[in-house]
Amino acid sequence: MRPVVLERLMRYYRYLSEVTARKNIDTITSAQLGATLHIDPTQVRKDFGAIGLMGISRVGYEVCEVCRAIRLVFGFDRPYPAILVGAGHLGKALLSYPGFVRYGLRFIAAFDNDPSKVGLTEAGLKVQGIRSMKPFVRKNNIKMAVLTTPVSVSQTITDRLVSAGIQAIWNFSPTRLTVPEGVLIRNEHISLGLAQVAYHLNALRTEENGELPTLDQPCDEPCRPEDL
Amino acid sequence: MRPVVLERLMRYYRYLSEVTARKNIDTITSAQLGATLHIDPTQVRKDFGAIGLMGISRVGYEVCEVCRAIRLVFGFDRPYPAILVGAGHLGKALLSYPGFVRYGLRFIAAFDNDPSKVGLTEAGLKVQGIRSMKPFVRKNNIKMAVLTTPVSVSQTITDRLVSAGIQAIWNFSPTRLTVPEGVLIRNEHISLGLAQVAYHLNALRTEENGELPTLDQPCDEPCRPEDL
Repeated sequence: MRPVVLERLMRYYRYLSEVTARKNIDTITSAQLGATLHIDPTQVRKDFGAIGLMGISRVGYEVCEVCRAIRLVFGFDRPYPAILVGAGHLGKALLSYPGFVRYGLRFIAAFDNDPSKVGLTEAGLKVQGIRSMKPFVRKNNIKMAVLTTPVSVSQTITDRLVSAGIQAIWNFSPTRLTVPEGVLIRNEHISLGLAQVAYHLNALRTEENGELPTLDQPCDEPCRPEDL
Repeated sequence: MRPVVLERLMRYYRYLSEVTARKNIDTITSAQLGATLHIDPTQVRKDFGAIGLMGISRVGYEVCEVCRAIRLVFGFDRPYPAILVGAGHLGKALLSYPGFVRYGLRFIAAFDNDPSKVGLTEAGLKVQGIRSMKPFVRKNNIKMAVLTTPVSVSQTITDRLVSAGIQAIWNFSPTRLTVPEGVLIRNEHISLGLAQVAYHLNALRTEENGELPTLDQPCDEPCRPEDL
């Protein structure tokens, strides 16, 4: 299934699980759903048909059935045990976020190479040294890893993960990773989104104040790497 | 400047600030940078030219100059005071992440409508009641807001923020928001990335086990909304 289809399925899922929690809605038509999410109703019916759902004329689809069918496509009901590599600020935030289990991710171990972090308990998991990572992944047949390491070590860690059997990496480390075919890398560049927000505000500020960026001053600031 | 250009600038920036922190590199050529980031060197020179940078033949660009020019484009050196709305798990994680200040964001206040959260101190900021939000934004001339509210209230909060003068919203609430022209919304759907990872693994599992999704069992699970 193509990413663009998966994305639409997720939009249906989020909306339907949200709306049914608030209101007592049992059924929804493709027209209603399409209008709310700005998706062509024909597309909605096509997407639903592709995952085995049949609507009833003028009644629509059972909301609960739709949610369940989408959960089956993604495997949300059988969360994957996953490991976190890199127990910095972002790593700890991800570990302690309870919402991921709904989307198929359950952290069962965390690793870091910083001796001051190893042994600490974060969100109920004891941070282990990076040397334990590979044997742990092999022994427990782990397929999913979440990466929040500094860029300088991300590729090395990735190679080790893949050689231990990892098949999918959710990468928050701001770098491009190389993996063999068949292994999935999903990159999340949160700072990229922030940068676009900052650019918009900076452009407004520059417009209002008539200030123009200048490179005249000497460059005395060090370039600081991203801190994860 | 188009988002795709901004994205490339950010890729240069992240790589150069990372690499200079590790190695003692003062200059880089467009060929070197292009090869590393898989970007055409001609494109690199064009992007750099557009932000006022001139390379020297066979020497390349001063890394420090490039970083500084990019910071100027985004306004990274003059971080925007921003407010957080929604002090749940994700909100708290964002508040306590120190890396955002490098990308132009500095939290100066946090708001929530949950009485059990109001008054608590998170990452050095006291969580304020939602009623204080609008006067605070007006009084302090705040332009940026980060939204991690439940979907059911996100649009109402957005309307209030915009009417108080907010010009850019970094939205982590998994819903589409409507704003007047000139106000920027940047949506971050973290769970979408996770869903794609889960889909990949689920497809592999189904392939390996010969299991096919089935809708035969009755639907007895409630649909749960996303928990932020």
